[in-house]
Amino acid sequence: MLDPKIVAELESVVGEQFVLTTPEDLIAYSYDATFTSAKPDLIVLPANTQQVSEVLKVANREIIPVVTRGMGSGLAAGSIPFGGGIVLALTRMDRLLEIDRDNMMATAEAGIIASELADAVAREGYLYPPDPTSDSYSTLGGNIACNAGGARCLKYGITGHYVMALEVVLADGRIMRLGGKATKNVTGYDLVHLIVGSEGTLAVVTEATVRFIAAPETERMAQAFFPKLVDAGRAINAVLASGANPSMIEIMDETAIRSVEEFLHMGLPLDIEAILLIQTDGDEADATRGIEIAAEICRQNGATEVQVAATPQERKDMWLARGSISGSLGRIRPNKLGEDVTVPHSAIPEMIARIKDISAKHDLPIVIFGHAGDGNLHPNILFDKRDPEESHRVEAAVGDLFRASVEMGGSLSGEHGVGVLKKPYLELALGPIAVEMQKRIKQAWDPNNILNPGKIFD
Amino acid sequence: MLDPKIVAELESVVGEQFVLTTPEDLIAYSYDATFTSAKPDLIVLPANTQQVSEVLKVANREIIPVVTRGMGSGLAAGSIPFGGGIVLALTRMDRLLEIDRDNMMATAEAGIIASELADAVAREGYLYPPDPTSDSYSTLGGNIACNAGGARCLKYGITGHYVMALEVVLADGRIMRLGGKATKNVTGYDLVHLIVGSEGTLAVVTEATVRFIAAPETERMAQAFFPKLVDAGRAINAVLASGANPSMIEIMDETAIRSVEEFLHMGLPLDIEAILLIQTDGDEADATRGIEIAAEICRQNGATEVQVAATPQERKDMWLARGSISGSLGRIRPNKLGEDVTVPHSAIPEMIARIKDISAKHDLPIVIFGHAGDGNLHPNILFDKRDPEESHRVEAAVGDLFRASVEMGGSLSGEHGVGVLKKPYLELALGPIAVEMQKRIKQAWDPNNILNPGKIFD
Repeated sequence: MLDPKIVAELESVVGEQFVLTTPEDLIAYSYDATFTSAKPDLIVLPANTQQVSEVLKVANREIIPVVTRGMGSGLAAGSIPFGGGIVLALTRMDRLLEIDRDNMMATAEAGIIASELADAVAREGYLYPPDPTSDSYSTLGGNIACNAGGARCLKYGITGHYVMALEVVLADGRIMRLGGKATKNVTGYDLVHLIVGSEGTLAVVTEATVRFIAAPETERMAQAFFPKLVDAGRAINAVLASGANPSMIEIMDETAIRSVEEFLHMGLPLDIEAILLIQTDGDEADATRGIEIAAEICRQNGATEVQVAATPQERKDMWLARGSISGSLGRIRPNKLGEDVTVPHSAIPEMIARIKDISAKHDLPIVIFGHAGDGNLHPNILFDKRDPEESHRVEAAVGDLFRASVEMGGSLSGEHGVGVLKKPYLELALGPIAVEMQKRIKQAWDPNNILNPGKIFD
Repeated sequence: MLDPKIVAELESVVGEQFVLTTPEDLIAYSYDATFTSAKPDLIVLPANTQQVSEVLKVANREIIPVVTRGMGSGLAAGSIPFGGGIVLALTRMDRLLEIDRDNMMATAEAGIIASELADAVAREGYLYPPDPTSDSYSTLGGNIACNAGGARCLKYGITGHYVMALEVVLADGRIMRLGGKATKNVTGYDLVHLIVGSEGTLAVVTEATVRFIAAPETERMAQAFFPKLVDAGRAINAVLASGANPSMIEIMDETAIRSVEEFLHMGLPLDIEAILLIQTDGDEADATRGIEIAAEICRQNGATEVQVAATPQERKDMWLARGSISGSLGRIRPNKLGEDVTVPHSAIPEMIARIKDISAKHDLPIVIFGHAGDGNLHPNILFDKRDPEESHRVEAAVGDLFRASVEMGGSLSGEHGVGVLKKPYLELALGPIAVEMQKRIKQAWDPNNILNPGKIFD
């Protein structure tokens, strides 16, 4: 528990009603989208950057951990306050500050919901491409902290590629502005992109300027049924090397197909090993040409059936299967652990084979789906967390997944971050020297280790 | 002069013939593409990463400055050894190590000439987009150190956007590998892009893996003549907001036009204030549609004549004017100082007006050309460096240029880096806090300050 004097000081900064301390509040801010939880000492809800600055000055002086949090949708336990202290929830700081059409950039506070930003940009006729599956409830600040991706990132890149400028508060409470609206800028070290993906350990992001792009006129979608998974892997590489220029290539393995089919009865075939869902965009001619190239490549690489959506409704129906996987899995086992391994895309067929071996070895169903086009798979381990022995096998399987990914030149996380859950594997993935050099930066920037301590590394 | 024992130790690492110490050698490695120069104590030419590691161990133990250098084409004095010490020239490390077609990535040693890498990729039918004007003689390592851009970067981004993995040697000689071939990777801090653009101050880049993309089928080019410069600025913004998707938009002001015309007698009109040179690429239909959209927008925004090149030869002829500006300027004044300011593209017309004011104020001809589409202008100040009073006015004009850029939300450098020449203005551009936080990283990574000391900041 914090000294009442400090609580009073924080209340004087943000107002009494914005410092939460009831048992119910502590529980509400104790978890994210993982299985873990830990209660903070209190929650502070600042209204603006100046208040964030004042809160951090107090925390730094008293050496109190500060865990910055958006909507708590993280999948790596990055926003759980394991060491207690202050949860700094930025949800009140959700204003869209500017849409700059001339420079095609938007500026918003960190607590804005990601899709609200994207919708505001869309209303102006433009596209903000990052599309994490969580974007209807995750915040821009959270997306930046984890450098979030999404299906469309195959063609358009991840959140970091769109961040032009940041306003951040340092551990000592000083406010720092980085970057700007100049699209080329090599004036000193790239601190903007050091902070993107740093999961709240280097600074608190309070405001961001992101660029947007001209919206493609239209989209096309195709789904291809592959009796052999390995053929689907080959088709992915062939489509990427062609002129099809897909905006997404998603994969569903046979377990995912079966799970969705039993849930929705869409008429998906149950005798195939994989479905690829491919999308193209651009003007009518481009998008159509691209999807036709992709469809032909799938046929040449062993797809027995390729359907091209003729209408927007058919596109929605096709996406429904992919979009329903996660929800349908609860029918198989009560719990699931969704991982986020990423491999070079040439290694996707091999990675899928390895995941199947791991599933058999630990006697756990593992469903494979995800952003195959960019090598980012979401193997979901299905289990019952009330069974401690089974939970133990899940842990072992996760370790095997990470080792397989790293052996193939991949990484622990494509878009969720390291948080706490992947911390034990960080050195395996990066080597001891790279971890040490990261720690040196952390130490240099946050010598009292108050910003999200214990996340990414110890 | 270095202790002969240390010289002998370095000779034992790389071989006697690869440690250069004659007065001629010291002069040869004393300058870059700027007006400044300073002699090192000696030059070391390592053959591989292991030798770089051994050299750095010696330098770190003895606290000797190490200035890493490629071909010395830098425009900010970043590779000049002002404090003496060792010039570590990586020109022998110029091997292309791998073209990985499946993952569309190439791996090469840092000393490879940038265009040799791009040509090797092109022979496989792909495109490595970064195209700094120096690419036929600058090295990949130098491009990475400065995060180099080029005309095509408007559409395709700068060098850093293509760097997937690095092998670097730290100040203490340890070898660190960063990144990989997984296209999405949020495992820990993004050290790859901290090092890109750090101008040799944080680590020595010895090897890099870069991605390449499908090559566009064809290109189209148009040039538009604008009686009013401000109209050209408006047209740039309108083209960017349209679906034209240009791969480059270059600008030439009336001084540049006149200089080229007097040099080449191409028939360029001398009664206009600006030429825009616009390129599109893609398949035939796309590239053609894009250039037609751009041409129409130029006409609607005050261009009195718009020519679309009908053949590849006509495209070459159009580019000849832009490509000849630099060479033609010597006819006006014996010396030129090429700057690299970048502003948000909406501010281009205003920036051009400010540059003209600065030219008048200091009574110095300033030619304006550059990558207008991404806001990166290259104002070239023409002068005679034998005249100390004039050289003094050049310095004052440069200061005014930087202040104007920063006031408009721009930066000191779009693609050349800070080096030594822009160091006095760093705090103006970034503010004291951001400079301090950069220094903290430098201090944490290179506590003896041996890696390119005195560059970017003191």
